[in-house]
Amino acid sequence: MTEQMHWARWGDPAEAHPLSEEARGLVELAFGPAAEHPTTPLSDVRLPAPRLPEDLLAGLRDLVGDHQVRVDHEARVRHTRGKSTPDLLRMRHGDADDAPDAVVLPAGHDEVAAVVSWCSEHRVALVPFGGGTSVVGGLVARRDGYAGVLALDLRRLDRLVAVDRVSGTAVLEAGLLGPRAEALLAEHRLTLGPFPQSFEYASIGGFAATRSSGQASSGYGRFDQLVVALRVATPVGDLELGSAPANAAGPDLRELVLGSEGAFGVITAVTVRVRPAPETAVYETWRFASFPEGVAALRDLAQSGDAPTVLRLSDENETALNLAKPDEIGAGGEGGCLVVTGFEGTAEAVEARRRVVATRLEKRGGRSLGADDGAGWAAGRFKGPYLRDAMLDIGVLVETLETATFWSNLPRLYDEMSAALTAALTPASANGGGGPIVLCHISHVYETGASLYFTVAARQVGDGLEQWAAAKAAASDAMIAAGATITHHHAVGRDHRPWLAQEIGPVGVEILRAVKDRLDPNGVLNPGVLVP
Amino acid sequence: MTEQMHWARWGDPAEAHPLSEEARGLVELAFGPAAEHPTTPLSDVRLPAPRLPEDLLAGLRDLVGDHQVRVDHEARVRHTRGKSTPDLLRMRHGDADDAPDAVVLPAGHDEVAAVVSWCSEHRVALVPFGGGTSVVGGLVARRDGYAGVLALDLRRLDRLVAVDRVSGTAVLEAGLLGPRAEALLAEHRLTLGPFPQSFEYASIGGFAATRSSGQASSGYGRFDQLVVALRVATPVGDLELGSAPANAAGPDLRELVLGSEGAFGVITAVTVRVRPAPETAVYETWRFASFPEGVAALRDLAQSGDAPTVLRLSDENETALNLAKPDEIGAGGEGGCLVVTGFEGTAEAVEARRRVVATRLEKRGGRSLGADDGAGWAAGRFKGPYLRDAMLDIGVLVETLETATFWSNLPRLYDEMSAALTAALTPASANGGGGPIVLCHISHVYETGASLYFTVAARQVGDGLEQWAAAKAAASDAMIAAGATITHHHAVGRDHRPWLAQEIGPVGVEILRAVKDRLDPNGVLNPGVLVP
Repeated sequence: MTEQMHWARWGDPAEAHPLSEEARGLVELAFGPAAEHPTTPLSDVRLPAPRLPEDLLAGLRDLVGDHQVRVDHEARVRHTRGKSTPDLLRMRHGDADDAPDAVVLPAGHDEVAAVVSWCSEHRVALVPFGGGTSVVGGLVARRDGYAGVLALDLRRLDRLVAVDRVSGTAVLEAGLLGPRAEALLAEHRLTLGPFPQSFEYASIGGFAATRSSGQASSGYGRFDQLVVALRVATPVGDLELGSAPANAAGPDLRELVLGSEGAFGVITAVTVRVRPAPETAVYETWRFASFPEGVAALRDLAQSGDAPTVLRLSDENETALNLAKPDEIGAGGEGGCLVVTGFEGTAEAVEARRRVVATRLEKRGGRSLGADDGAGWAAGRFKGPYLRDAMLDIGVLVETLETATFWSNLPRLYDEMSAALTAALTPASANGGGGPIVLCHISHVYETGASLYFTVAARQVGDGLEQWAAAKAAASDAMIAAGATITHHHAVGRDHRPWLAQEIGPVGVEILRAVKDRLDPNGVLNPGVLVP
Repeated sequence: MTEQMHWARWGDPAEAHPLSEEARGLVELAFGPAAEHPTTPLSDVRLPAPRLPEDLLAGLRDLVGDHQVRVDHEARVRHTRGKSTPDLLRMRHGDADDAPDAVVLPAGHDEVAAVVSWCSEHRVALVPFGGGTSVVGGLVARRDGYAGVLALDLRRLDRLVAVDRVSGTAVLEAGLLGPRAEALLAEHRLTLGPFPQSFEYASIGGFAATRSSGQASSGYGRFDQLVVALRVATPVGDLELGSAPANAAGPDLRELVLGSEGAFGVITAVTVRVRPAPETAVYETWRFASFPEGVAALRDLAQSGDAPTVLRLSDENETALNLAKPDEIGAGGEGGCLVVTGFEGTAEAVEARRRVVATRLEKRGGRSLGADDGAGWAAGRFKGPYLRDAMLDIGVLVETLETATFWSNLPRLYDEMSAALTAALTPASANGGGGPIVLCHISHVYETGASLYFTVAARQVGDGLEQWAAAKAAASDAMIAAGATITHHHAVGRDHRPWLAQEIGPVGVEILRAVKDRLDPNGVLNPGVLVP
């Protein structure tokens, strides 16, 4: 695996494959004949003229060293936007209009702090860049009124700074990507635990700044729950938070940095809870007759305190396509809804918990499809984004969106989002092939509610951008109308900002603006992102 | 039990008793001859001249009704300060200098919002008043620059607004006191769970505003962890938060309201996670040879995920006095350290968990002192504050303070706080009787750390105020020097404000000020509390 993603696709080019003949046949059956959608070559990608004058660049070089300020074509393209489907569509068409003027790679906290101060002084917009995996426009700065836009690539902040075995914590620098962080912790036989689908390319600082949540969150917790301390560089000085696991010393300011998406400061180090690396991992899949029955079973597990490490329920549509194992598309012909349970820990604890979960699932009408070592699921779990590229190559739009709500509101939210997405994507799709495909799963459960994660696919119309924008707006409106959140774990970025304003209301918006104005008086930190 | 506490003592006068002869003998042995310290009669308590002019009072009466604006002597005395030892000492001496000019009792959210706006418009300081149990000066407003001070008594906001059985949540109004909230939930066979020592008189809004944490927090969670939604009246409008159990929709603004101590707005309703009322409760006590061995056992339970519902470890000094059962002072002669474990739930779950905990405690060198139904412990657990009054009556100063830190830092924090308290209280005490008594227990554990709760007793010198202020300052300095938090669950108030500023640093302080300035531009909400 390479640490640097393809500039216009997800992940490592060596891991990407076109669709199998069988899958391609299914896609054509659903959406009509495949139409090749080639990608503009890197050298032909259009960049805006660089705006940072030489004297400013010279000042930057003084701060971080000559080689750590990049203005070349490739560096600028590689730091343009994130990996949402609209991001990929634009880049495939050669559009890098949102590229930074320069990329700067500081060596540690002090250099980050110096660059932050410098940007504030010179009114240069600053976009913190970890793994570049944002799917919500989190890496697109507003350009007007600024001397230029800088991408702050944090890859050189890549140390495991300290391990406290007694407290069960570790200090990780913000630029560490998921696999490297886990490898460093594995040397101490420790693990962080939650693995979001973006894990292979997402950074520790990004996990914190966006409140990431991984596939094993039932067992290990959301990333924000794992954070016990933070170090942040802001234009008005450093912020160091985290004096105890929990306290009553006023509002928990850590929770204001978590989810701040680079708009209040740049997170340079995070102290996280770590656990012993699990001795073993066992998976067991189950089938339920319907989505509501599966939901009832998940709710029972979440509220009983007996949830497994990994817990995922696919609705009927997703089960039929079996996206949990994208290599086997078309294999799921039994109907009903698939549940994946995963257990990590000591062999004894895993077996005990597996039995408790099995008893509960059986009581709720579940039928076991058998246990395995999870190798298949684990191997497939990071492949979803590669599949999207293969679909885009043949003119099929694929995107995901997600939300969460309380259990009692889940059926309404599911129905209304499904209807909104289907309606928004149907008129266009009807012109060529069948209607859209709307799949859903639950992969994060809480005592009081759960997330809903939708995957949609439709025949691409034109450049796909307007088509997707309309569907995304309809789905987002449906979330807010149902009283749900605009995002459970993808964050706000630019894309969700109008709906965030509705979700937290005018007084909530004023709180964000007040903090932003005080910590970033010149408004240079990721302008346009998060704060309505 | 009465719902209104004695104006100069803790709790219900009918529940208060003088020390037994045996206990009084022990106290005299420790601190020298008892000296009677009588309390000034209520009618002789000195109040400041009321400052709110009649036309302003008339405006208030228009908002909430004539009978809901009180300016009589007793109402003003009963809303003066909270229940810290300095608060009690001042009141016993007849000093009610911090009394509000009037007490207002709104009927619901809309009336609260109207009073908040009115106060902002007329520059009248507003102190939200729930149960009046603050021990950190949370009910003492700054007076200079304001037209007057109003206590906003929330007792009429006393409804269980809604129960969502599917999601496992309930909406409670802010003025509900602990026992009434539990009684209303019990009608639905539900419980909130955590029982702080102040439970009998503390309010739901106060639990949220101060990040309260109860004796059963190992099993049910801290109060802040139970909150899923909040409704708040601020001078710039209403704030409604809580669209999902968890989300990535920017910073979690709920965590900014939790712990805000009335300085950003008045919490009028809280949606909390509720659980089925437990079928049974079983307690088991254990003895460890030393405090470090007990700490290691608690850490093992916390990090294994096998913690009981209630978990408490007393150090050698507290074990000797057995403050967990104040009726039996002097009975603990076996040495070592006492651990109390409590289990709530179904009979089956309780027995299973009890066995897992027993195995772990035995492995760590614990010796079981036997299981019981917990009636003794449950009966005694709210009595500590009454004991303090009985000690103050005979000239012995008693107070508690608390902090938290990560496990690896706990031994240092324990040693340095014990030394600081002992040193600060020794010179004075040495004049009459023995030195001070410093007791400690752990009652809140987390995977990464735990709280320390100290109880100190010393012969009172003079009015006791300077004596205690010096000891409190020394202990607070020791917390911050050790990198711990200034408060684990008592909150900040006025008393901890200088140390909060050290704990969160200048940028943290600026965040609090920015939010305060934006939501409360005229600075009328609990001025002087929380925000440095």
